[in-house]
Amino acid sequence: MPKISLRGKNIPESPIRKLVPYSRKAKSRGIKVFHLNIGQPDILSPSSAIKAIKNIELDILPYSESEGNLSYRKSLKKYYQSFGINTIDESNFVATNGASEALMLTLSTICDNGDEVIIPEPYYANYNGFLHLFDINVVPIISEIDKDFALPDINKMQKKITSKTKAVLLCNPNNPTGYVYSKEELKKIGDFCLKNDIFLIVDEVYREFVYETEHHSILSFNEYKDIAIVIDSESKRYSMTGIRLGFVVTQNQEVINAVIKAAQTRLSPPLLAQICATAAHESNDNYLVEAKEEYLRRRNTLSKLLEDVPNIKFSIPKGAFYSIVELPIDNSDNFAKWLLDEFSLDNQTIMVAPATGFYSNSKLGEKQIRIAYVLNEEDLKICIKILKKALEEYPNKQ
Amino acid sequence: MPKISLRGKNIPESPIRKLVPYSRKAKSRGIKVFHLNIGQPDILSPSSAIKAIKNIELDILPYSESEGNLSYRKSLKKYYQSFGINTIDESNFVATNGASEALMLTLSTICDNGDEVIIPEPYYANYNGFLHLFDINVVPIISEIDKDFALPDINKMQKKITSKTKAVLLCNPNNPTGYVYSKEELKKIGDFCLKNDIFLIVDEVYREFVYETEHHSILSFNEYKDIAIVIDSESKRYSMTGIRLGFVVTQNQEVINAVIKAAQTRLSPPLLAQICATAAHESNDNYLVEAKEEYLRRRNTLSKLLEDVPNIKFSIPKGAFYSIVELPIDNSDNFAKWLLDEFSLDNQTIMVAPATGFYSNSKLGEKQIRIAYVLNEEDLKICIKILKKALEEYPNKQ
Repeated sequence: MPKISLRGKNIPESPIRKLVPYSRKAKSRGIKVFHLNIGQPDILSPSSAIKAIKNIELDILPYSESEGNLSYRKSLKKYYQSFGINTIDESNFVATNGASEALMLTLSTICDNGDEVIIPEPYYANYNGFLHLFDINVVPIISEIDKDFALPDINKMQKKITSKTKAVLLCNPNNPTGYVYSKEELKKIGDFCLKNDIFLIVDEVYREFVYETEHHSILSFNEYKDIAIVIDSESKRYSMTGIRLGFVVTQNQEVINAVIKAAQTRLSPPLLAQICATAAHESNDNYLVEAKEEYLRRRNTLSKLLEDVPNIKFSIPKGAFYSIVELPIDNSDNFAKWLLDEFSLDNQTIMVAPATGFYSNSKLGEKQIRIAYVLNEEDLKICIKILKKALEEYPNKQ
Repeated sequence: MPKISLRGKNIPESPIRKLVPYSRKAKSRGIKVFHLNIGQPDILSPSSAIKAIKNIELDILPYSESEGNLSYRKSLKKYYQSFGINTIDESNFVATNGASEALMLTLSTICDNGDEVIIPEPYYANYNGFLHLFDINVVPIISEIDKDFALPDINKMQKKITSKTKAVLLCNPNNPTGYVYSKEELKKIGDFCLKNDIFLIVDEVYREFVYETEHHSILSFNEYKDIAIVIDSESKRYSMTGIRLGFVVTQNQEVINAVIKAAQTRLSPPLLAQICATAAHESNDNYLVEAKEEYLRRRNTLSKLLEDVPNIKFSIPKGAFYSIVELPIDNSDNFAKWLLDEFSLDNQTIMVAPATGFYSNSKLGEKQIRIAYVLNEEDLKICIKILKKALEEYPNKQ
């Protein structure tokens, strides 16, 4: 029988999804599983988006343009203007099958095999998968929980630069840490990239969820216009992760042309998604304001609840809807499986993402989990009660 | 300014989409352009699919399972049973962002950098792009217009085998040639792949459009179950190319597991597409029968019209909705541009796909174009009248 490739064999497992078989088993035993492991919000999608779909008047669902339909890209331009970015026009966007594809197209067009991308860790686990598929190497640099996961020291980062370095990849607001980079930090990293003549890719999909501080898009810095590439998505913003619509934004013409060519090979991003998202953009409701308020309440609830759990460490997230929590346990993979396989409280348990998969060296995440606070406050209360009890009962405490 | 990669620089241009700027210019001059270049059918999508979308009762549009929702995969199983494939179950399918992603996930999980895939040429041009992005090499083998593009001689194919060969990739029914491989040909190529211990990937997205002969899915041959991988899509079948929904089907467990892991990195295929396609599968209307009848009429109309054009050569397509036509011209790229830039008949012109992009060596396609007969018979008549006149006037006849 022919064998699959080494590339195929070594695809990193998704820490967010790899426990799914265990949760299915728990559910089949009649246990209710609260999903703290995945960023699937329970907040309703915009009614304007749902209405747009219900009211479609098309009788054929055709390809859209490879870079996304002009009407959609025009609505993106307006959306960017709404937070002060006036230098971007329709031709600077390429719509994609989710932010995942946006990042894959970007990485594959700026990196050759064996090239390197510097990423502060912990980082969004699926970056590993994208980079692996295109044979690009992660060069990690630690951001520390004791410093709230702030930007690592630039001097340390300078030591990571080699002739193969093509980019720094930031996630801002950060998944999984909830950190939001300050203007000063962005200037530091931007200048660092300029000096080293490398790209600065910033994943800004959680832009709308920033609490008690301000978000600065890398596109708001005119001095980085030639090196800045933003990865964006409609998924989390509008609680419609299933539509699969993201996009690449950059003023670097060589990059955008290459991304469009790569996008043409797969013909088109999804049409119905563009209809949904255009309607959401054009709606005058308070959707984003209200969603942000809801996440802020949840963050505050979660932080307060976590303060009551003994022997743990966490940083209060300033953005997104994730928190990395350090626990007094042997190994977060084992703990997460144990929660699903062996533990329950009143016939309920929680599913968490082990942080092992958010570090290039899994050992660094052995004592940490990622919690997505995408559940309502009542459910969060139950979840943290379960966590607290589980930590008492877990046999391999440390 | 940092430079993009060689990979990014050398992405093959889509011959199907690269002329878009020229057609935009023609349209801006007030010229009506008939699109014979792209497989965007004008046949209506199934009303059951549109109705399913208009009637959705979701108020959140969440991720689906990475491999596609179970309900969708169950409907696929039934669809496969409808043409006699009873050995496939839900777990053998992975739903993807169009057949494009299905092929990318497959190729990337069975091939390492520098591996080789044998493909009869001319072949679907975007295969070049997918293979390029993952640094996999095409090993072409000519299928000849004078033999109606039948399967190339197996002895010649044997000479193409190296230690790097991982698969043969067929498209059946074939885009761009319209050829449908016979049972005997499929046995020949299947045995060849078994003997050489390589995979046999068959792109069967045009399965439903086969005229005056029978289509044999590679999955109907039990002896190839370990090596056969089918690429499939809802796009053309249901005239809903914009939903972006395809899938990988295989009984090879190692392949399916790797494809699922790769699919997990990008989280989910589109949800609304699965709703559309499930409804289309479950509808009891005569949609596919009527669509096939319509394409058959168009094929017959096109073939008859082409018989009246002097000095051309073509093979009557047995399936899909494309025809490769050899013309008395210097260069099909130049001809296709000239049609848009300089020619018109009654203020109308046609856009065709130069066959240069359907060959690994573009010279081989210099005298050929691909025509997609996705327009109604009246329009096809106008199109071929335009082609005939254009061939009379084209300055670089040969």
